[in-house]
Amino acid sequence: MAALLLNCDMGESLGPWPMGEDERVMPLIDCANVACGFHASDPVTMRRTVAMAFQHDVQVGAHPGYPDLVGFGRRSMACSPDEIEQMMVYQIGALAGICQAEGGRLSYVKPHGALNHDMVHRPEVMAAIMQAVASFDASLPLMVTATADITATQAMAIQYGLTVWNEVFADRTYDAQGFLTSRTLPDAVHHDIDTIVAQAKAFAHHEPILANDGITPLRLAADTLCVHGDNAESMSAVRAIRAALSGVAS
Amino acid sequence: MAALLLNCDMGESLGPWPMGEDERVMPLIDCANVACGFHASDPVTMRRTVAMAFQHDVQVGAHPGYPDLVGFGRRSMACSPDEIEQMMVYQIGALAGICQAEGGRLSYVKPHGALNHDMVHRPEVMAAIMQAVASFDASLPLMVTATADITATQAMAIQYGLTVWNEVFADRTYDAQGFLTSRTLPDAVHHDIDTIVAQAKAFAHHEPILANDGITPLRLAADTLCVHGDNAESMSAVRAIRAALSGVAS
Amino acid sequence: MAALLLNCDMGESLGPWPMGEDERVMPLIDCANVACGFHASDPVTMRRTVAMAFQHDVQVGAHPGYPDLVGFGRRSMACSPDEIEQMMVYQIGALAGICQAEGGRLSYVKPHGALNHDMVHRPEVMAAIMQAVASFDASLPLMVTATADITATQAMAIQYGLTVWNEVFADRTYDAQGFLTSRTLPDAVHHDIDTIVAQAKAFAHHEPILANDGITPLRLAADTLCVHGDNAESMSAVRAIRAALSGVAS
Amino acid sequence: MAALLLNCDMGESLGPWPMGEDERVMPLIDCANVACGFHASDPVTMRRTVAMAFQHDVQVGAHPGYPDLVGFGRRSMACSPDEIEQMMVYQIGALAGICQAEGGRLSYVKPHGALNHDMVHRPEVMAAIMQAVASFDASLPLMVTATADITATQAMAIQYGLTVWNEVFADRTYDAQGFLTSRTLPDAVHHDIDTIVAQAKAFAHHEPILANDGITPLRLAADTLCVHGDNAESMSAVRAIRAALSGVAS
Repeated sequence: MAALLLNCDMGESLGPWPMGEDERVMPLIDCANVACGFHASDPVTMRRTVAMAFQHDVQVGAHPGYPDLVGFGRRSMACSPDEIEQMMVYQIGALAGICQAEGGRLSYVKPHGALNHDMVHRPEVMAAIMQAVASFDASLPLMVTATADITATQAMAIQYGLTVWNEVFADRTYDAQGFLTSRTLPDAVHHDIDTIVAQAKAFAHHEPILANDGITPLRLAADTLCVHGDNAESMSAVRAIRAALSGVAS
Repeated sequence: MAALLLNCDMGESLGPWPMGEDERVMPLIDCANVACGFHASDPVTMRRTVAMAFQHDVQVGAHPGYPDLVGFGRRSMACSPDEIEQMMVYQIGALAGICQAEGGRLSYVKPHGALNHDMVHRPEVMAAIMQAVASFDASLPLMVTATADITATQAMAIQYGLTVWNEVFADRTYDAQGFLTSRTLPDAVHHDIDTIVAQAKAFAHHEPILANDGITPLRLAADTLCVHGDNAESMSAVRAIRAALSGVAS
Repeated sequence: MAALLLNCDMGESLGPWPMGEDERVMPLIDCANVACGFHASDPVTMRRTVAMAFQHDVQVGAHPGYPDLVGFGRRSMACSPDEIEQMMVYQIGALAGICQAEGGRLSYVKPHGALNHDMVHRPEVMAAIMQAVASFDASLPLMVTATADITATQAMAIQYGLTVWNEVFADRTYDAQGFLTSRTLPDAVHHDIDTIVAQAKAFAHHEPILANDGITPLRLAADTLCVHGDNAESMSAVRAIRAALSGVAS
Repeated sequence: MAALLLNCDMGESLGPWPMGEDERVMPLIDCANVACGFHASDPVTMRRTVAMAFQHDVQVGAHPGYPDLVGFGRRSMACSPDEIEQMMVYQIGALAGICQAEGGRLSYVKPHGALNHDMVHRPEVMAAIMQAVASFDASLPLMVTATADITATQAMAIQYGLTVWNEVFADRTYDAQGFLTSRTLPDAVHHDIDTIVAQAKAFAHHEPILANDGITPLRLAADTLCVHGDNAESMSAVRAIRAALSGVAS
């Protein structure tokens, strides 16, 4: 059985402003989504984060975002497909260069925040992102939020010669179409750690989870699970998930 | 006889603000120093500039600068060696990524503006820059402004396993130590086109030029000559130099 | 008869990048919309532009935009009302400070680009902008693009204690509801100078113009007319409009 | 006896990145130096910080810095006097606008970080800063780090019609000329809270302190004392100083 890779946003500090418990979460994950300087991070932070990832044999992924530090890349911007494609290549290249300087290599790409959201909801954004990754290095997998019907994404990935890593969440609820429940709704997030671990295990076993309508069984393609290292609660969840999945993997 | 490569700063537009006569000067040069987004340029401009360079078989070099758009990278910043090293790797990587997406590759590195000036005058900046290039890809030559005594630069380059391309200027005067006369002084710049062409030819023939004291003959190592494509006067100079050097090369 | 004030976007240079024919258009206009550093301009450019405006007895207006230099403030950003309100106050305050240092005062506010567009189309953006202006200085008029039905805008302005200056365009076509024809459509812009002057005179005389359906007469409230000083064609139009309106005013 | 005003850098968060214990330190201080968006802060943070200061009857000062978020304004930039003057006016105006929107007013100006350091060490920077404050509002005091000989600063302030507030530090050592010991030296900072409180009381009583040569008594003009609210240790110091000075003031 293929492992469910744990991925986590990392390297989100900026100059004098720290963010996240990178040192503590790095030993627990498989894939570090490293911010590339547009929505967070700076060259020194990126270098330090990549060095730490390589020390722990963690794969480094580019985590490019919209150019918006104050909004942390969470505010959608009306960029053209060409602008999105080139800002993706620029940020991927910058992080790939830092990996190269550190003696390793970049392993995958995961768009951040509003850019990730726009990718899932707007085909022309998905196309611009796939074009960017394919032209830079088609062997790099692209993480895409899984939904119930991934045929369109798969078809586009084949067209661009790309591999997709379907990403799922253990601490979020899903609607019946397999879209993440909006964070503006009250039931968007699981806080109970047993629920979170159970959902992670379901994904790892390729078992269905229940949609937020309470009746629809949802079977999502799951290559990687997004975890968070930004506070004590999420750190506890990562540890519990890692322990549970290690059991699964054995 | 080795050719004297003509290099020119390119891709210095920013979003809606054009700069330079890139389309007109590209066919006349050998090496395009492409701005990397910190002091000028943006991902779309970089992609367009790289595509144009490859169309004309012009080598693409990274032209990284201090993070200062308003000051165009011409204001020195008190950055640490680590900050300089990582901002170099970041910018080199970003442009290398764009070259890769465009189906080509990066060919060399030339620091911009105040960063270039600091490199020549402060050994710890030179070391940080060489460390950056060496760790990214030691096969990339580093352009360094030639002075009368290049032994220190050569020794450091050997230490880092790097090739240096000595850069000279046809439209600038030099002092007796082979440093460029400061632009704050009245005799810093040649405006007479015959003088400019004569100086270019002297460099190409490895003949000495006269320092600004009027008596010291100056023999500078010259691998590449910096030309400018930002206005009609400089465009005329580029054409005249190209014509003169083509004669030399034949 | 009240004069139709000519307003023009000014101070859109950035560091080393010039934009616009500010020196040439300043003597022809009544109101200078000065960029505030978020989508264009920088403190030195702002100071120089304000000084020039005061020399020509031109009113200075704040022209705040989204924080996006590369996109020139033309890419809508999903900012919250609070973010929009505070970025408005910040930019208005910055320019008001420069006016004060130059011995004069700020006269009005006109949002720029995508922020202006969002204001017209999204009531919560309009409210955030009015809140910003009202809390900073309710005596400053707010320029708002005129449409056929301005009752909602007027009602909101009364609520915030603000004066609205309705803005019209001589070189743009309107649909039957009085909205500007989208620039993505072929008939969005008038290029014929006689047509442009005639439309300007109609606004000045409070006479109706014809909507782009060819049949609907459109009577728009018109306090100020937007002109452009960015190229030779637009400069000719400004001169012709100024000449025609001077005749009207006499 | 005039009170020794406690001032503290505030509003240094940026978008999603918090910094400082602003809520806890605000009730303990007299003057809040609010960052203005160039080296830290953003419009929403500035508004929130100003509102909090006004709630606690704390005076709001502009804390402008070099345009360098990643370096937090701690890296000197080779800006011209005109650039420094206008970036000062811009930032002062922006914060003054936010004070005005919040129903209050700006009370003073204190340059931040490297800009503050350059002001003390380079007369042309001091002149540019004084010109900025004087042209904006000459009634605003300018905080300047006190040294043993303040005659040059006082003479320049008189020339610009400005009031200077001499600033001292309780947790830093001074050399015999009354300059702060460089932080690169081992004895730059006092960590013992009794020493810190004793030095604060000496300043408040206009008594001499001992320079770091161990023999020179140093009598510094002291209008305001800089305190820090960034961690538990500095918070303890602020409380102890406030308690000690309250005794003095009674």
